Amino acid sequence: MPHYAAPIRDMRFLLHEVFGAEDFLASLEMPEELSAELMDAIVEEAARICEDLLAPLNQPGDQQGCRFDDGKVLAPEGFRQAYRTFTDGGWGALTGDPAYGGQGMPKMLAVLFEEMLFASNSSFALYPILTSGAAMALGLHGSDELKKRFLPKLYSGRWSGTMCLTEAHAGTDLGIMKTRAVARDDQSYSLTGSKIFITGGDHDLSDNIIHFVLARLPDSPPGARGISLFLVPRLQVDEAGEVQGENGVSCGSIEHKMGIRGSATCVINFDNATGYLIGEEHQGLACMFTMMNYERLSMGLQGIGLADLSYQVARDYALERIQGRSPAGPENPDQIADAIIVHPDVRRMLLTMRANILAGRALALFAATRLDIAKFGRDDDARQEAQQLVELLTPIVKAYCTDRGFEDCVTGQQVLGGHGYIQEWGQEQAVRDARIAQIYEGTNGIQALDLMGRKTVRCDGAHFRVLAAEVSSFLERHRSIATLQPQFSAIQQACDDLAALTDRIIEKSRHDPAEVGAASYGYLEAMGIFLYGFMWGRIMVTAVTGPQQADSFGGEYRDGLLQVGRFYFARIMPRYRSVIEAIDSGADCLMALKPGQF
Amino acid sequence: MPHYAAPIRDMRFLLHEVFGAEDFLASLEMPEELSAELMDAIVEEAARICEDLLAPLNQPGDQQGCRFDDGKVLAPEGFRQAYRTFTDGGWGALTGDPAYGGQGMPKMLAVLFEEMLFASNSSFALYPILTSGAAMALGLHGSDELKKRFLPKLYSGRWSGTMCLTEAHAGTDLGIMKTRAVARDDQSYSLTGSKIFITGGDHDLSDNIIHFVLARLPDSPPGARGISLFLVPRLQVDEAGEVQGENGVSCGSIEHKMGIRGSATCVINFDNATGYLIGEEHQGLACMFTMMNYERLSMGLQGIGLADLSYQVARDYALERIQGRSPAGPENPDQIADAIIVHPDVRRMLLTMRANILAGRALALFAATRLDIAKFGRDDDARQEAQQLVELLTPIVKAYCTDRGFEDCVTGQQVLGGHGYIQEWGQEQAVRDARIAQIYEGTNGIQALDLMGRKTVRCDGAHFRVLAAEVSSFLERHRSIATLQPQFSAIQQACDDLAALTDRIIEKSRHDPAEVGAASYGYLEAMGIFLYGFMWGRIMVTAVTGPQQADSFGGEYRDGLLQVGRFYFARIMPRYRSVIEAIDSGADCLMALKPGQF
Repeated sequence: MPHYAAPIRDMRFLLHEVFGAEDFLASLEMPEELSAELMDAIVEEAARICEDLLAPLNQPGDQQGCRFDDGKVLAPEGFRQAYRTFTDGGWGALTGDPAYGGQGMPKMLAVLFEEMLFASNSSFALYPILTSGAAMALGLHGSDELKKRFLPKLYSGRWSGTMCLTEAHAGTDLGIMKTRAVARDDQSYSLTGSKIFITGGDHDLSDNIIHFVLARLPDSPPGARGISLFLVPRLQVDEAGEVQGENGVSCGSIEHKMGIRGSATCVINFDNATGYLIGEEHQGLACMFTMMNYERLSMGLQGIGLADLSYQVARDYALERIQGRSPAGPENPDQIADAIIVHPDVRRMLLTMRANILAGRALALFAATRLDIAKFGRDDDARQEAQQLVELLTPIVKAYCTDRGFEDCVTGQQVLGGHGYIQEWGQEQAVRDARIAQIYEGTNGIQALDLMGRKTVRCDGAHFRVLAAEVSSFLERHRSIATLQPQFSAIQQACDDLAALTDRIIEKSRHDPAEVGAASYGYLEAMGIFLYGFMWGRIMVTAVTGPQQADSFGGEYRDGLLQVGRFYFARIMPRYRSVIEAIDSGADCLMALKPGQF
Repeated sequence: MPHYAAPIRDMRFLLHEVFGAEDFLASLEMPEELSAELMDAIVEEAARICEDLLAPLNQPGDQQGCRFDDGKVLAPEGFRQAYRTFTDGGWGALTGDPAYGGQGMPKMLAVLFEEMLFASNSSFALYPILTSGAAMALGLHGSDELKKRFLPKLYSGRWSGTMCLTEAHAGTDLGIMKTRAVARDDQSYSLTGSKIFITGGDHDLSDNIIHFVLARLPDSPPGARGISLFLVPRLQVDEAGEVQGENGVSCGSIEHKMGIRGSATCVINFDNATGYLIGEEHQGLACMFTMMNYERLSMGLQGIGLADLSYQVARDYALERIQGRSPAGPENPDQIADAIIVHPDVRRMLLTMRANILAGRALALFAATRLDIAKFGRDDDARQEAQQLVELLTPIVKAYCTDRGFEDCVTGQQVLGGHGYIQEWGQEQAVRDARIAQIYEGTNGIQALDLMGRKTVRCDGAHFRVLAAEVSSFLERHRSIATLQPQFSAIQQACDDLAALTDRIIEKSRHDPAEVGAASYGYLEAMGIFLYGFMWGRIMVTAVTGPQQADSFGGEYRDGLLQVGRFYFARIMPRYRSVIEAIDSGADCLMALKPGQF
């Protein structure tokens, strides 16, 4: 069974050295002050629960899967006890609103925690993370009465939460959904319809499940503007917050999936179920999307976390497995072969993974700092600018980090050769589990459209300009570091190339309605490559300028980071140019084929 | 359950129009003449058996998997009966030596057949394909007596075959294997040792299993030069070819794998088992590698076949699934949404798949023509030149076609969104099944090393020059086609760029032993991108110059090919340049990190 060790040193380096978390958070209006020591203690405690409690259940949970028995869903063995321990430890309340029992922690810490959760057990991770998302929707848009009734139990994990969007005939296109809500006399609503692909839709971990359901009111406007959000508990809850009887909510079946087999993916049927409106009527999508930036960031962390798990296994294997000889001659002449880490192509695989993982984690932290500013910032302008960056970065973290994460897991599997293909080593499970992150919470193609359309063309490139200014000011600030000039030039060049590309696409999209969709995926890829480069620039600057004396990270560690960064700029960064070249070929070659010619 | 329809039209177009099979084969010394009609009949009959007999067993076989019961392996239900029907139809003898009951068909037909086999049921496909490989090793290197005793029953499928290379401690590094063979007085050998990852190592499909085992004789030279090849039947076979009793061969266990779960992957133990030497002592690797060019080509076909299966499902889904609206406005205003084929990004995914599949199939056929020349050619020089191309193309077909094939399956899964992740639609099985082809028969990293080292640096680029001459002569021959000038230029440019790159790497490798391994994977990728472009050039030329009157393929079909080709050159071909840029950064950035810094 693979062993997962939370990457605490890398995380602490990013948190403290690269992003200066203590000073940064002190500049915000946080509910309480967070010292570096307290943050370290939280990260270490989170690491312990992930390594010791959740990781051991990962492979057995995959092999057993969820069971659907007599209308009830049972999570894999051990999950129920682990969930109790997990929630009793307060981990379901980490970022919750302190007014209702939450701990009010910044997103910066949550992203590190969630990455560890996904790395140690992606199936398990989804239960509390979906609950946090549901609680956030309620916290942002629910009435005080509903918040008082439901939030504390969602934070404590006694109840869990889901988001119910998809219907069988309507995946991405929420505007055509059919689930209906009818107002009753008592301010509640009656919901009827069927939802599919509901993560954690039914299970035996918590005492109740609170569904957040998108549905259509009678006489609502057609399309996406006619959708409202409702809170629908699986079991009725009275005004005192006590669980009562059944509520017309049932699980129709569970899906048999490629991976995350310990996570219950359910068909949930609502039959005159009692629900409560969250936010305004017809504002359901807006309510849902205010928490989507948080959830989509989480999915990016699944990609990064699983890639890191796969990296650890592949690295240990490469250091131990002996086979063949170093191209420069035997390194271990006493043994019949050298460890495979001597081979340049094995190093290429490991370095690609490590370069992506560290940059992805840095990018998630960077986005988290902007979410924290947007939520806790003291200054209106800063909050607004942070929000622009959040809008821009969210689809990139969701899609680019999960694309690279999946690819990294495939690479980590490859390092083990045939051993990567059998269940024993866990590498194939990481691939299967990582795959879903490119699909759910809006497929990566949808993320690319969101980035290109709503976040770029529609605002005329304004969000990108905020990013470009940030990049320029970073490069300006560190221009004196002579050894990093090649990397700085590469970053500036990529930034300029992307700025010009952005202008070209905006211009072309005025005349060709297909241009946005034709450019979107490549644009997201090019942005991802560039942003990972920007993150490596930040990491390398910190590695060079940090305290070299009495350094808890050590010169070897900093030197290692510099080498990985150099690898990134030499081997990965150049790719964005051919992506731009492909984009510039335009939409015609995509649209020319008639449907019958496919 | 997904429906697989063999791509007969595409196959016939390539076979007859692009590669002019009838005239081409008539120019060789084939055992018998092959008319276009006979070839079509074979392809259509092969399609029928794949679609009707094997495809229906694909998903059930995956779900049931192989069972290991009381030392015996049982293939999934239905496989035994299907195997009987399959072999009774003579499909195990297609390319076999006519002197022993084979049909002596060219590799050109075999590649089409094998692609369909893998597409319809990759697990099943491996039983007869491994048997063919084993029969080929015997046919090329065995004594007449052994051939007479074993070949007819391998061709008829009454017995099946395996290749036993890998041991637990030695995967790629065959030189350190431990299995021992000791000569007996009667010209037989006694074999003792344990092999792992033996595909079809045990099962209930055939009456006997003939293992081809690499082992070490006493006092053999160390390393790869001390390995010999032995034929070891699971059950003893007397000189009359009748099955006798046990032979010290047993199955220790089967692997639980990510995919190809209907194919038995076994630990096979040899305990004083009787074996017969194939070829000369200590020449085992050479014997094995003469058939490897055939086997590795087969693996490429697994990538292409599964990609085509996935493409068909994704295309049908995209044509039927309605969601959202065309960017140019509703195409089906009467319905609530348009089919998702209207979206540029969905088209990008489908076109990428189709462009790769057709080019991959063409490349496999191209390699097959060279294998056929090398085997049946009348002219020594032509045979030798063909052999050089085979050497060069084999690792590319094996690795590039399976890398793209896997990626295409992932893309085909993505087109279906959440439906791609559940078992029902079969897309996730295609991903799991395709993944192995990048790993077995020498990982793709090993293929890249073979291409870069043995096939390029060691022969000082001679093989590449044969290819480059072929490309130039093709472009020269068709220079009058004005509409294809942009594509021709792109092909010539890529060819020139690769020639220059090849020289640079050869030069650098003289001073830096790590250079070959550092450049290898990128070099294989760049070659693959270029060769797919060359294949698209050939397809486009044929689409333009073919008989437009009374054309059985139709103008719409030819026009569709031209559009897919244009897409390839606009969107995929540019990538090779950034790959070259990465290669040119050299080995330093790979080798700088110390093992402890990973």
